[in-house]
Amino acid sequence: MSDAIHEKVEALAPFIYLMRRDLHKHAEAAWTEFRTASIVAKRLKELGYTVTMGKDAVSKKDMMGVPSPETLQKHQERAIEQGADPSLVALMDGGLTGMWADMECGGGPGPKFALRFDLDSNDAVECELPEHKPFKEGFSSVNRGAMHACGHDGHVAVGLAVAEILAGMKDRLKGSIRLIFQPAEEGVRGAGPMVAAGCCKDVDLIVGAHIGFQAAKKGDIVCGARGFLATTKWDVRINGKSAHAGAAPQEGRNALLAACAATTNLHAIARHGEGTTRITVGRLEGGQGRNVIPPNAFMALETRGMTSELDDYMTAEAARIIKAAVEMWGCTYAVEVMGGTKSGESSPEMIAVVKKLAETMPAFTNIMEEKDFGASEDYSHMMTVVQQNGGLGTYIQVGTNRTAGHHNDHFDFEEDDLLHMAEILVRLVDAYLAK
Amino acid sequence: MSDAIHEKVEALAPFIYLMRRDLHKHAEAAWTEFRTASIVAKRLKELGYTVTMGKDAVSKKDMMGVPSPETLQKHQERAIEQGADPSLVALMDGGLTGMWADMECGGGPGPKFALRFDLDSNDAVECELPEHKPFKEGFSSVNRGAMHACGHDGHVAVGLAVAEILAGMKDRLKGSIRLIFQPAEEGVRGAGPMVAAGCCKDVDLIVGAHIGFQAAKKGDIVCGARGFLATTKWDVRINGKSAHAGAAPQEGRNALLAACAATTNLHAIARHGEGTTRITVGRLEGGQGRNVIPPNAFMALETRGMTSELDDYMTAEAARIIKAAVEMWGCTYAVEVMGGTKSGESSPEMIAVVKKLAETMPAFTNIMEEKDFGASEDYSHMMTVVQQNGGLGTYIQVGTNRTAGHHNDHFDFEEDDLLHMAEILVRLVDAYLAK
Amino acid sequence: MSDAIHEKVEALAPFIYLMRRDLHKHAEAAWTEFRTASIVAKRLKELGYTVTMGKDAVSKKDMMGVPSPETLQKHQERAIEQGADPSLVALMDGGLTGMWADMECGGGPGPKFALRFDLDSNDAVECELPEHKPFKEGFSSVNRGAMHACGHDGHVAVGLAVAEILAGMKDRLKGSIRLIFQPAEEGVRGAGPMVAAGCCKDVDLIVGAHIGFQAAKKGDIVCGARGFLATTKWDVRINGKSAHAGAAPQEGRNALLAACAATTNLHAIARHGEGTTRITVGRLEGGQGRNVIPPNAFMALETRGMTSELDDYMTAEAARIIKAAVEMWGCTYAVEVMGGTKSGESSPEMIAVVKKLAETMPAFTNIMEEKDFGASEDYSHMMTVVQQNGGLGTYIQVGTNRTAGHHNDHFDFEEDDLLHMAEILVRLVDAYLAK
Amino acid sequence: MSDAIHEKVEALAPFIYLMRRDLHKHAEAAWTEFRTASIVAKRLKELGYTVTMGKDAVSKKDMMGVPSPETLQKHQERAIEQGADPSLVALMDGGLTGMWADMECGGGPGPKFALRFDLDSNDAVECELPEHKPFKEGFSSVNRGAMHACGHDGHVAVGLAVAEILAGMKDRLKGSIRLIFQPAEEGVRGAGPMVAAGCCKDVDLIVGAHIGFQAAKKGDIVCGARGFLATTKWDVRINGKSAHAGAAPQEGRNALLAACAATTNLHAIARHGEGTTRITVGRLEGGQGRNVIPPNAFMALETRGMTSELDDYMTAEAARIIKAAVEMWGCTYAVEVMGGTKSGESSPEMIAVVKKLAETMPAFTNIMEEKDFGASEDYSHMMTVVQQNGGLGTYIQVGTNRTAGHHNDHFDFEEDDLLHMAEILVRLVDAYLAK
Repeated sequence: MSDAIHEKVEALAPFIYLMRRDLHKHAEAAWTEFRTASIVAKRLKELGYTVTMGKDAVSKKDMMGVPSPETLQKHQERAIEQGADPSLVALMDGGLTGMWADMECGGGPGPKFALRFDLDSNDAVECELPEHKPFKEGFSSVNRGAMHACGHDGHVAVGLAVAEILAGMKDRLKGSIRLIFQPAEEGVRGAGPMVAAGCCKDVDLIVGAHIGFQAAKKGDIVCGARGFLATTKWDVRINGKSAHAGAAPQEGRNALLAACAATTNLHAIARHGEGTTRITVGRLEGGQGRNVIPPNAFMALETRGMTSELDDYMTAEAARIIKAAVEMWGCTYAVEVMGGTKSGESSPEMIAVVKKLAETMPAFTNIMEEKDFGASEDYSHMMTVVQQNGGLGTYIQVGTNRTAGHHNDHFDFEEDDLLHMAEILVRLVDAYLAK
Repeated sequence: MSDAIHEKVEALAPFIYLMRRDLHKHAEAAWTEFRTASIVAKRLKELGYTVTMGKDAVSKKDMMGVPSPETLQKHQERAIEQGADPSLVALMDGGLTGMWADMECGGGPGPKFALRFDLDSNDAVECELPEHKPFKEGFSSVNRGAMHACGHDGHVAVGLAVAEILAGMKDRLKGSIRLIFQPAEEGVRGAGPMVAAGCCKDVDLIVGAHIGFQAAKKGDIVCGARGFLATTKWDVRINGKSAHAGAAPQEGRNALLAACAATTNLHAIARHGEGTTRITVGRLEGGQGRNVIPPNAFMALETRGMTSELDDYMTAEAARIIKAAVEMWGCTYAVEVMGGTKSGESSPEMIAVVKKLAETMPAFTNIMEEKDFGASEDYSHMMTVVQQNGGLGTYIQVGTNRTAGHHNDHFDFEEDDLLHMAEILVRLVDAYLAK
Repeated sequence: MSDAIHEKVEALAPFIYLMRRDLHKHAEAAWTEFRTASIVAKRLKELGYTVTMGKDAVSKKDMMGVPSPETLQKHQERAIEQGADPSLVALMDGGLTGMWADMECGGGPGPKFALRFDLDSNDAVECELPEHKPFKEGFSSVNRGAMHACGHDGHVAVGLAVAEILAGMKDRLKGSIRLIFQPAEEGVRGAGPMVAAGCCKDVDLIVGAHIGFQAAKKGDIVCGARGFLATTKWDVRINGKSAHAGAAPQEGRNALLAACAATTNLHAIARHGEGTTRITVGRLEGGQGRNVIPPNAFMALETRGMTSELDDYMTAEAARIIKAAVEMWGCTYAVEVMGGTKSGESSPEMIAVVKKLAETMPAFTNIMEEKDFGASEDYSHMMTVVQQNGGLGTYIQVGTNRTAGHHNDHFDFEEDDLLHMAEILVRLVDAYLAK
Repeated sequence: MSDAIHEKVEALAPFIYLMRRDLHKHAEAAWTEFRTASIVAKRLKELGYTVTMGKDAVSKKDMMGVPSPETLQKHQERAIEQGADPSLVALMDGGLTGMWADMECGGGPGPKFALRFDLDSNDAVECELPEHKPFKEGFSSVNRGAMHACGHDGHVAVGLAVAEILAGMKDRLKGSIRLIFQPAEEGVRGAGPMVAAGCCKDVDLIVGAHIGFQAAKKGDIVCGARGFLATTKWDVRINGKSAHAGAAPQEGRNALLAACAATTNLHAIARHGEGTTRITVGRLEGGQGRNVIPPNAFMALETRGMTSELDDYMTAEAARIIKAAVEMWGCTYAVEVMGGTKSGESSPEMIAVVKKLAETMPAFTNIMEEKDFGASEDYSHMMTVVQQNGGLGTYIQVGTNRTAGHHNDHFDFEEDDLLHMAEILVRLVDAYLAK
C-alpha cells in the first residue's frame, strides 16, 4: 500500500506546485482568506466531501481581531476580482473563512481522523529582488502587505492533494475523515472559533503538519512537537492630546512617548528562571503631523511562554508596564485581546507510529522523535481538545532548506518537500484506518 | 478713507464666512492644495490680477517633502471631484500649488507691496463631536486626515476679500500690489521654492498675518512678531531585519526598538542656556506583523531654535542620537531633509505704522507692539529676503477666542475676527501706497 | 572718596588672594562649612562686628537636605583638624553654619544695608591635571568630592575684605551694615532658614554678587540680574526586591530599571512655550551585587523654571513620571524635598546706581544694565523679602575669564577680578550710606 | 561504614552550626575573605593537612575584579580586628584568599579526590527585621554591605566538618584527598586563578555542593547539575563632561543619560530561540552634585547563557548597545572584564553513584538524578578541567526550606540540612577511595 501512496503523491506533484504558487501569488491575511477558502471549498465538493462552512464552521462571537467591515468587503471584492466564486465568498461574510470537510469511509465503522491545514498569510511586504525565487519566477504576492512567509500556501496545496488521495482510497478505509481548513493561524485566532463551532467534536485522532522549523533542513522530520508556546496577542490604543509642537508643547499629552516608553520597557521584562518566554511589539504607529504633539498611538504586541503559566507571567508584567507608561505621559488607553492560545504536547503513542512510518521513507534521513516547538500554533488548541476527549494527536514537522527564516520577507522553501509531507500524512491515516 | 475700508470689509463678511467654511470642509494638506489654489486663481483672475502660477511660481528643484506621484494624482482627482477647475489643476502637476497675483495701481510709480497668505491644512483627523462647531454645522473636513486646525482657511478667505477691496481702490493708490498665496506652510517648505522662483523680487514692503497665537484672545493685536523659531524637518527611515518573533527573535534586527530609543532620547536633549529650543517626533511607524521582529521604522521629526544657531545645536544633537540609536540595534538608516526655515524679526518702522492704525480701530482693545512668536513660520524667509534687499516687513497677529489650541483636533475660532484682519491689512497698504 | 576705596581694596589684594586659596584648598559642601564659617566669624569679631550665629542665625526646622549626624560630626572633626576653632565649631552643631554680622555706623540714623556672601563648595572631584592652576600651584581641594567650582571661595574672601574696609570707614557712614554669610547656596537651601531666623528683618537695602556667569569675560559687569530661575530639589528613594539574577530574575522587582526609566523620561518632559525650564537628575545610584536584581535606587534631581509657575509645571510633570516609572517596575518609593527657591528681579533704582558707579571704574569696559540670570540663586529669596518690605535690592555679576564653565571640575577664574567686586560693593554702600 | 559516617556527622552538628553562624556574622565578600580563610587554614593544619595558600594557590595575574589596595588593606585590618591570625592574613596580601589542603591516605595508591567549597559572601545589606532569624538571634552580618545570602557560610562549615571526618578515616582509604577552598565564587572569578595555580592538577575525581537551588525544599537532592550557565562580568566606566545644570546644560556630556539608555536597552536584548540567556545591570552609579550635568557613570553588569555560544551572543549584543548608548550622549567609555565562566555538565557515572548513596539516606525523600542548574558557578570550570583530563565530577544540590530566594536580603535556610550535605560528601569519597 505504501508504494501506491507514494506513486499517487508523485503523480500529484505538478498540482501541488501549481496550487502552492497560485496561492502564494494571491496571499490573503487572517480572516480575509476569501479566495483561498473558495478554491478549497470548491475542490473539496468536487471530490465528494460534505463541506461545513460559514457561520456553521466558525463561531462568530468567539472571533478576535477581525478587520473592519470595510476592510472585509474590500478583500471580498478583491477575492472575486482574483477569480473567487462570488456565491462561496458570500457565505463567508464577516470573515467566516474556516471550513471542514467530512467523508465516511467505505470500510465500516471506525475512528474519526481529522487533518488540519492553515490558510492565512503573514503581514509582510514580499521581497522583490532577483534572488527571491517567487519574484523572479513571477509568483510573488500581488496583494501588497500580505505574503506567505510561513509556508501555509504549501500546506493548503498539500491538504488538497491529501483530500484527493484519501477520496480515492476511501473504500479501503474504515471510520471517517475530516479535513479542517483553518483561517487566522498567524494570530492564533482561528482555532478557537472553529472548536467552538464543533470542528473537534467526536474526533478521535488528529494530525497537523508544518514545513520547516525544528525540522530545519532537507531530510529532517520531527514526529511530534511538544512545548508549543502559549501566547497572548494584544492591540493597545493610547489617547493623548495634540498641541502645537512649537508654540505650546506643554499643552499636549504625548501618546507617542508613552508608546515608546512602553515598547522599550516591555522588551526589558525579566527573563524567567523556569523556562522560555517571549515578548514582541510587532507594530507601532503614533502621531499625526510632524509639528503636532502626537495625540494617539497604537501598538500590536504579543507575549509567549513555554507554559500557560509563563505566558501569564508575561501578560501580568506587560499589563503593568503598559498602564504605567501611559500614566507616565498623562494619557489614557484601551487594550483589546486579539488572539491567544495555550501550550500543548503531542501524544507519545502517535509519535511512535509516525516514527515507524518515517523510517520506511528514504526522504527522511534525520528522524527526530520530538522537539520543543519553541513557537505558538493554535493547532495545539484543537489537539488538546481531542486529547481531553480521550483521543490522540500529533504535530509533524517536515524539513526543507529555506532561503531565510520564517516570517522574513525573503522566506522561501523547496517545494518537493511538500510531497513528503503529503505522503506521511496519508500513510498516517492509512495506518490507523486501514481495514 | 478708513471708514470706507471698514464698510467694504463689513460688506464682504458673508463672502469671508462662506469661503472660510467651504475651504474648511475641503481641507488640503501641503503640496496638495489643488482645489484651494484653483478657487484662488480663478477669483484673482476675475478681479483683474495677473496670476503667476505652476512652474513659474514654484521652483520644482527646491521643493522638499513632496508626496509621491500617486498621492499627488489621487489628490488632483479628488480636487476635481470636489469642484476644482481641471485646467487649473493641470497647471499644478507635481504639487506646484503656489501662486502670486500682481496689479499695477493707477496712481503712478511707487513701492511694490506684497501680502502673503498660506493655503494648506494640517495632518489631523478632525474632531467629530457635537461641541465642535464645524462638525455640528456641517463644515468639518470631508478629507479625512486633513484638517484646518491652524486657521489658514480663514487666511485665504481674508486674502480674497483683501484682493477684492484693493482692486476696487487701485486708482487711489500708487505703486503696485502683489498677493502671494503660499502652499506647504505647515512643513515650512513652501516659502523657499517660491522665493527661488522670484516671489519677493523687487518687493519693497511685505506683510503677513495670523489669527490667534500670541494675540490670544478677542481684542488683542500684535503689531509685529519677532523671534520666529528657526526649524529643521527630517524624515528618518530605519532598516533592520525581520525574524520569527517566537522561534528565532535573535535573528532579527529590531528597527522599532531603534526608533523608540531614538524618540525617547531625542526628547531628552539638554535644554540650551541661551534660549528657546524644541524637538518633536511627530509621527512614528514601525513593524509589519505582530509576530515578526520589526524590520523597518519611520520617524517624522522637527527641531526648532530661537536663533538659527540654536536650531543647529538641536540638529547636531539629534543627528548623533539617531545614529547611535540605530547602531544600538544593529540597523541602518537614511535621513531626508523635508523642510526648514530660519529665524526673523519684524521691522520696527512698520510695527509703528501698524500700531498707529490699530489704535484707531475699536476692535483692538489690547495692542501689543511686538511679541516673541515662539514658533516657526516660513513667512520669516520671505520677510528676511525683503529686508535684506532694503525693504520693510512685519507679521501681524489678530486675536480671537479659540475652542482649543492651534493644531488640536478641536481647534476653532470666532469668524468675525477675520474681518479685523482684513481691515488692518487693507489699511496698512493704504497707509503706504495712498497717493 | 572713590579713590580712597580703590586704594584700600588694592592694599587688601594679597589678603584676598591668600584667603581665597586657603578656602579653595579646604572646600566644604552645604551645611558642613564649619572651618570656613569659623574663620569668617573669628575675623568679623576681630573687626568689631556683632556676630549672630548658630541656632540664632539658622532656623533648624526650616533646614532641608542636612547630612546625617555621623557625616556632620565627621566634617566637624575634619574642620578642627584643618585648623578651625573648636568652640566656634561647637556652636554650629547640626550644620548651623550660617551667620550675620552687624555694625552701627557712626554717622547717625539711616537705612540698614545688607551684603550677602555664600560659603559652600560644590559636590565635585577637583581636576588634578597640570593645566589646572589650583592643582599646579598646590591649592586644589584636599577634601575629595568637595570643590569650589562656582567661585564662592572668592566671594567669602571679598566679603572679609569688604568687612574690613567698611569697618574702617564707618564713621563717615550713617545707618547700619549687616554682612550675611550664607551656607548651602548650591542646593538653594541656605537662604530659607536664615530668613526664617530673621536675617532680613528691618533690612532696607541688600546686595549680592557673583563672579562670572552673564558677565562672561574680563571687563564685563551686569548691574542687576532679573530672571532668577525658581527651582525645586528632590531626593527620590525607590524600593524593589532583590533576587538571584541567574536563577530567578522574575522574582525580583528591579528598582534600577525604574530609576533609569524615570531618568530618561524626566529629561524628555516637554519644553514650555512660555519660558525657560530645566530638569537634571544629577546623581543616581542603584543596586548591590552584580548578580542580584537591584532592590534599591536613589536619584537626586532638580527642576527649574523662569517663573515659579514654570517650575511648578516641571515638578508636576516630574512627580507623575517618577510615580509611573516606579509602578512600571512594581516598586515603591518616597520623595524628600531637599531645597528650592523662587524667582526674583533686581530693583531698577538700585541697578541705576550701580551702573553710574561702574561707569567711573576703568576695570569695567562692558557695562550691562540687566540680564536674565538663567540659573537659580537663593539670594533671590532674601532680595524678594527685602523688596516686599519696601526695600531695594540688586544682584551684581562681575566678569572674569574662566578656564571652564561653572560647576565643571576644571573651573578656575582670574583672581584680580575679585578686587573689582570688592570695590563696587563698598562704593555701593557708600553711595547709599554716606553722610 | 555508612552508619559510622552518619554518627560522626551527627557528633559534629554543634560545630557545624556554630561555625556557620560565626562566618555568617563576619561575612566577607570576594577577594576579602581574610578572616574566613585564616580560620579555615588554621583548622586544616591542626587536622594534619598540608595547606597550599597565598601566591602558591592563586595566580595573581589571572585575578579579575580585585578591590583597590586601600580596600584590601582595610579589610585585612578588619579581619584581624575580628580575630584573624595576622600572620596568615599577611600571606594573603593582595586578596590571595584561596587555598587547598592535601592529605595522603594510608591505604596505598589510588585516585586523587578533590572536594571544593566556596568562601565568599554577597554584596547585600542584610535584613534587620525581627522575622529574620540571623538578626533575631544575633548572628546577622556585622560587616554592612556584605551578607551570606547564598549559603557559602554553611558550605565552609560543612567543608571543615568533612575535613575532620576524612582525616579520622584516612587509613581506611586509598589514594589522596584535596580540599579546595575557593574565594570569589559570586563573581565567578575565583576558580580561574586557582586552576591556573594548579588546584586541579592530577585530580581524578571532584565534587562540589550547594544548599538549595533546584533542590528546592527539605528532602530534595539533585545528584548532578547540568546546564551551568556560562557567564561574563563587566564593569563599564563612562566619561562625559560636567556643566552647570541651570546656566549651561548644553555644555555638558551627560554620562548618566548614557548609562540609563544602556541599562534599559541592555535588558531589552532579544531572547534567544535556542536556549536560556540572562542579562543584569546589577549596579549603576552616576553623577556628582544635583545641579551638575553628570560627567561620569559606572555600571556593573553580567550576561549568562545556557551554552558558551549563547553567552557570546549576549556579550556581542551588550557590547554594541553599550558603545551606542555612550556615543548617543557624546561620551567615552572603558569596559573591564571582571569575571566569567563557561558552561558544564556533571559526569553521568558519578551521578549514578551519588544516586545510589542518596537512596540509602532517609533524609532524602525526593531524589532527582540531574537538573539544569539555571545559574552560573565557576565550579564548572574546575569540573570541566578534571573531565578534560579524563576524570569525573559532579555537583550536588541538597534541599532545604528557605525563607527567601538566594541573594535576597531575607535569605536563610535550615541548618540541619548541612548535615546531610556533609554525610553525602564523605560517603561519596568513601565510595571511591575505600580500600
